[in-house]
Amino acid sequence: MNVRKPIRLAMLGCGTVGTQVIRLLDEQADDLAARIGAPVELAGVAVRRPHRHPDVPQHLITTDADALVRSDVDVVVEVIGGIEPVRGLLVSALRNGKSVVTANKALLAEHAADLFAAADSSGADLYFEAAVAGAIPLVRPLRESLAGDRITRVMGIVNGTTNFILSAMDSTGASYAETLDEASRLGYAEADPTADVDGYDAASKAAILASIAFHTRVTAADVYREGIAAVTPADVAAAKTLGRTIKLLAICERIGDDARGSVAVRVHPAMIPRTHPLASVGGAFNAVFVEADAAGSLMFYGQGAGGAPTASAVLGDLVAVARNKVSGGRGPGESSYAALPVQPIAQVNTRYHVSLDVADRAGVLSAVASVFAEHDVSIAAVRQSGRGSDASLVIVTHHAPDEALRSTVEKVAGLPSVREVASVMRVEGEEP
Amino acid sequence: MNVRKPIRLAMLGCGTVGTQVIRLLDEQADDLAARIGAPVELAGVAVRRPHRHPDVPQHLITTDADALVRSDVDVVVEVIGGIEPVRGLLVSALRNGKSVVTANKALLAEHAADLFAAADSSGADLYFEAAVAGAIPLVRPLRESLAGDRITRVMGIVNGTTNFILSAMDSTGASYAETLDEASRLGYAEADPTADVDGYDAASKAAILASIAFHTRVTAADVYREGIAAVTPADVAAAKTLGRTIKLLAICERIGDDARGSVAVRVHPAMIPRTHPLASVGGAFNAVFVEADAAGSLMFYGQGAGGAPTASAVLGDLVAVARNKVSGGRGPGESSYAALPVQPIAQVNTRYHVSLDVADRAGVLSAVASVFAEHDVSIAAVRQSGRGSDASLVIVTHHAPDEALRSTVEKVAGLPSVREVASVMRVEGEEP
Repeated sequence: MNVRKPIRLAMLGCGTVGTQVIRLLDEQADDLAARIGAPVELAGVAVRRPHRHPDVPQHLITTDADALVRSDVDVVVEVIGGIEPVRGLLVSALRNGKSVVTANKALLAEHAADLFAAADSSGADLYFEAAVAGAIPLVRPLRESLAGDRITRVMGIVNGTTNFILSAMDSTGASYAETLDEASRLGYAEADPTADVDGYDAASKAAILASIAFHTRVTAADVYREGIAAVTPADVAAAKTLGRTIKLLAICERIGDDARGSVAVRVHPAMIPRTHPLASVGGAFNAVFVEADAAGSLMFYGQGAGGAPTASAVLGDLVAVARNKVSGGRGPGESSYAALPVQPIAQVNTRYHVSLDVADRAGVLSAVASVFAEHDVSIAAVRQSGRGSDASLVIVTHHAPDEALRSTVEKVAGLPSVREVASVMRVEGEEP
Repeated sequence: MNVRKPIRLAMLGCGTVGTQVIRLLDEQADDLAARIGAPVELAGVAVRRPHRHPDVPQHLITTDADALVRSDVDVVVEVIGGIEPVRGLLVSALRNGKSVVTANKALLAEHAADLFAAADSSGADLYFEAAVAGAIPLVRPLRESLAGDRITRVMGIVNGTTNFILSAMDSTGASYAETLDEASRLGYAEADPTADVDGYDAASKAAILASIAFHTRVTAADVYREGIAAVTPADVAAAKTLGRTIKLLAICERIGDDARGSVAVRVHPAMIPRTHPLASVGGAFNAVFVEADAAGSLMFYGQGAGGAPTASAVLGDLVAVARNKVSGGRGPGESSYAALPVQPIAQVNTRYHVSLDVADRAGVLSAVASVFAEHDVSIAAVRQSGRGSDASLVIVTHHAPDEALRSTVEKVAGLPSVREVASVMRVEGEEP
């Protein structure tokens, strides 16, 4: 049916995502050929342990990824993950004019500039929809649909493991450690959960999102990062009392006007109102809000991980780069002309929630309030409730520089009338 | 700064959207040039009444759209709306290799095949993100991001006017006529609201969405269409009693497997659970769910209309077609290879809610239930409540062919023990 020369595809890796990519390539071969204008031919699959892939035709399997990438292929799909040897393989592929589709968030968050430079040197395409938020179309909307607008903010839940754990802590009141154990048992957390729970995975995604949203270069090292291991049942309870819930958020902000502007990129747990659309995003789902000058607020929601959803994003990119091979066109390259500095977290304007156990006597509120005033931190809401000789004092601030908020909390903790700082958590979402 | 030859742009129309496009072209000129790789130069703006556009540089204004389209321009942006003379202008532009960006849903829903054929004849681009759901990236995700997946269903709220009216009826209990008056007074409904309230606008969008989601041709005439004028306060009250709310939905479904498959495309009011994410989409906002085999469920949410949001979508497309002009590439053309038949509404499986006022005596439920059984319609839930000599009987069915449901209701209405059919409404969303 198709007289066009096939698009020859090299797969690097064949784990959860790769297996699904191969399945869909086979099941949807006719549709893909019709949509691309040429059939796709799987030229080889590079893996480390060949005997582990009995479902892949054995003549396609190779352990020599380097030779596969150098062979006569048009497109390289990379689903191995990690930095090396993948970086070298993909740079070599791109330099040789082979378009690359990758789901590798860690690599992109660190070495996007190298990869794009290699792509530019040959005119190859570099697509990476699957690197952020799984099946949710997010990279393409930011790189293309909103290319005529000025994006000011991207905020979302981009890690399913931490979202599962925080949702479970919210509904059970259990500790972080207990809930992580449960998540591991159910397969929602990996054997080594560090990348997820310490926020590295979300920070890589935040770096990618900030780079494409703001037309600048942000790497994972630029992202302020706090994981969820320090979230306590007291934090969860304090959030509930305020009609809020705790989510691990990735937040990318454009600050100031274009000439003297900067960006702030951070990943940390935050309290959001239970009425906020992100509050009801449960389990392994991801959701991302985008704000742009002309478009206003947009939300994207869907499955953020898993073999088939991620494979859907990989295949969408594969169709795009294959169509470009057929038509002679090229997709968007790196757009980093804005070259905006990254603002350190100390200077970023945030809002804090602080719960204090204080002595129930006259003058306590005044002492605490004066520390906030000293640091120029304006208080948005106070709730004091007595409990015998103790009292609980909950304060939610207005926006202030993070370092001012942090110093305020430190100084408040040292006040003689403050018995304990029960919970400190940043606050996001609509004003209360 | 830019040495590239400018991309010359012809604007057809300068109303609410066009004015915003011109503003953003000016305000973001440097960013657009950096993102495209060449500056954009506005070559002319065709309008009917030149004196009505004092803000547009007068030397750019012309009443001769035909001459402007034939002049030395690279891209035509069309924001006039309606079928003629726009169809002729755009076909002529595309045949002459000028790429077209349009927000014209009515034109695309009727004449997409002509427009794509003209684009194919010269290799020009035809982009239309702004034609559906305003600023929400939806056309590009369906045409490109999900191009490697099999989309099975698209369901959403794609008309802000009717959503405003139904939301207001839900919160006030007022009649349709009263609420429409209020909507007109507040500027949420046009002087002639027919296109919105009778579902024509949503039907055009549904035709476009079904065509691109299912790789087939669906025109507005293929779309089953019911507006909201017949929605009564009794319907609204019945929905509330069941924990549901009424929304005007555009629903595109792929039915059966690929070889013998078909599509069903419909626009009608439906009850959805109040817990469904579409239930909380209020006012002029739009939201669309997409289901695909590999990606699972996705949701897209944002402003579905208005000058600036629609202009954002137009400019995103402008950057894409201008980049293609610079790089020599081409975006996706028509993808209608699947050529699926459209299933008539009579055969489409739907679910009904029926509220009946019945005589409160023995045998009524049995008589009603036997009519459902005769028509092979399975009942999902029944709620009977007595009120003196009368009783109310509420029935929610399982899925059945629409004609069977319709015949069932007609026959039930003729039963001697049935005083009145108080409300009939299709039911969508999760199973109750």
